[in-house]
Amino acid sequence: MKIFQEEEIREFVGVNSKAIEIIEEGFAALAKGKVTLPPIMRIDIPENNGEIDVKTAYIKGLDTFAIKVSSGFFNNPAIGLPSLSGMMMLFSTKTGLTESILLDNGYLTDVRTAIAGAVAAKYLAKQNVQSVGVIGTGTQARYQIEALSLVRQFDTIYVYGRNEEAAKNYAVEMETKLGKKVIVAKSPERVVKMSEIVITTTPSTSPLIKAEWLHPGLHITAMGSDAEHKQELDENIFSKADLIVCDVKSQCFRLGELHHAKENGILDDDKNIVELGEIITGSQLGRTNNEQITVCDLTGTGVQDTVIARFAYEQLVTSKVF
Amino acid sequence: MKIFQEEEIREFVGVNSKAIEIIEEGFAALAKGKVTLPPIMRIDIPENNGEIDVKTAYIKGLDTFAIKVSSGFFNNPAIGLPSLSGMMMLFSTKTGLTESILLDNGYLTDVRTAIAGAVAAKYLAKQNVQSVGVIGTGTQARYQIEALSLVRQFDTIYVYGRNEEAAKNYAVEMETKLGKKVIVAKSPERVVKMSEIVITTTPSTSPLIKAEWLHPGLHITAMGSDAEHKQELDENIFSKADLIVCDVKSQCFRLGELHHAKENGILDDDKNIVELGEIITGSQLGRTNNEQITVCDLTGTGVQDTVIARFAYEQLVTSKVF
Repeated sequence: MKIFQEEEIREFVGVNSKAIEIIEEGFAALAKGKVTLPPIMRIDIPENNGEIDVKTAYIKGLDTFAIKVSSGFFNNPAIGLPSLSGMMMLFSTKTGLTESILLDNGYLTDVRTAIAGAVAAKYLAKQNVQSVGVIGTGTQARYQIEALSLVRQFDTIYVYGRNEEAAKNYAVEMETKLGKKVIVAKSPERVVKMSEIVITTTPSTSPLIKAEWLHPGLHITAMGSDAEHKQELDENIFSKADLIVCDVKSQCFRLGELHHAKENGILDDDKNIVELGEIITGSQLGRTNNEQITVCDLTGTGVQDTVIARFAYEQLVTSKVF
Repeated sequence: MKIFQEEEIREFVGVNSKAIEIIEEGFAALAKGKVTLPPIMRIDIPENNGEIDVKTAYIKGLDTFAIKVSSGFFNNPAIGLPSLSGMMMLFSTKTGLTESILLDNGYLTDVRTAIAGAVAAKYLAKQNVQSVGVIGTGTQARYQIEALSLVRQFDTIYVYGRNEEAAKNYAVEMETKLGKKVIVAKSPERVVKMSEIVITTTPSTSPLIKAEWLHPGLHITAMGSDAEHKQELDENIFSKADLIVCDVKSQCFRLGELHHAKENGILDDDKNIVELGEIITGSQLGRTNNEQITVCDLTGTGVQDTVIARFAYEQLVTSKVF
């Protein structure tokens, strides 16, 4: 049984086209019914503003699968610690024995989450875009835009954060990193109005984006909501969208944006909702013209964890001498 | 973050009275409503005759809690590997960070499971017993009887296993270990008829003990069933029992012996079922006379994992120099 540290994992796994390929394979397996995906296990510790999630997925026929523990403790920054952390474990599907522990401190989750955003944009955003926007200024705001640059060319990034200082820091950092212009927006409204793709990356518990700001051709990916009380999108957005996509319907109707849309009577069943894997495999269509408004709700699935953990492990064991 | 191996964990945690004390504290916390106990997460891999469970529990106010992964792959013995394995992780309830990984290979589960059996017998078996019986000849058949000897004096052990050779090996080993007489029984019926306490420790999927074998004063603990398809006790046993106890009602009605009794209309609700923690805290009575037939259904709870993992960690960090 091999234990790997974050530093060595970072050497071998990153936001790149290989990661897109494996995450797409995971979503495709899900769409083909080849995945055992138990409901997320969650432990809430509200007195410390924290929660721990356990996710897992078994892709039938593969020799290993992952179990991931990820934590979000939102008082941590006040004591100089990151809010998010976690680890992944790989188990043999033949013997149940632990093959590896990946002490990634949430890094692999950051990558697989950002890559899912890129996959959504790949199939749902217009081919040609000039401006993209991001709501939030944290780690995912960075990774999501970096991943997006793998699938779409764009010149300008609009960023909005409640903390303007953090948004300014984001702008400086990302201009250097991506060589693109980053503009700090005064409001979420301005981000939406100026952008052809918008990604929301916050733990918000009330809608940040209003339906009246939508415009033809816009694609939105909301990746922040992964619990019943979280919500980034006004539920009326789902009545205006031409195409509604999500990672896993059952999960999004319980924890994601779709959950609020259903609760408010905007979506009364799942018949018009498409899963990302169905588009990847070609059984459903993604965007078909430049006028459609498309929305993708991502809650994060165990199948992404299993494929990224397997990939990391393969890279690590083939590249290292033990 | 500290990682411990099975060997060092075994030095500090064992089947002893201290373990009884901490497991009782766990059940008591559960009865007092102080525990967040999410449903078990399970991944079945039927093509390899395997399953992996994830259990957890947060005892409100404590500074750490455990998440446990345990696997049962029942083709393993054919290739020289143990069927059961697993590991526990301790997380800070303040920051969500991983405090420790206990690579116990299922040892702590063996201990906390056996100790729960001892706790059940402590409150539910007659004070004075001469003979006890065990169905099954595996690891738990050993640990359960060892743990039982902490709470009751007895002279003779009856053992039944489908594999007579394994039963004979058990007899030789346990006679030496406990200094008590061990008799290999020809049938489960003989075990039940000769014993005042019977513990079933098998992964059976059909009942091993029939209701017509019960006799006044008998106590049965069934600890094998932890999945919907497993069953060790004829469901009619629950209509003959004077006192029905379990570890957690919600879990036993889904996964344990109680599940089959309910499905067959023997138990139509949970009003006459007592949780072990309610007896420990004194809010419900255990055995009140020597004639009662008592039955305890144990499915294994995350709260046992949290208390034993916390205990192991405390012992390890206070006893070792880093």
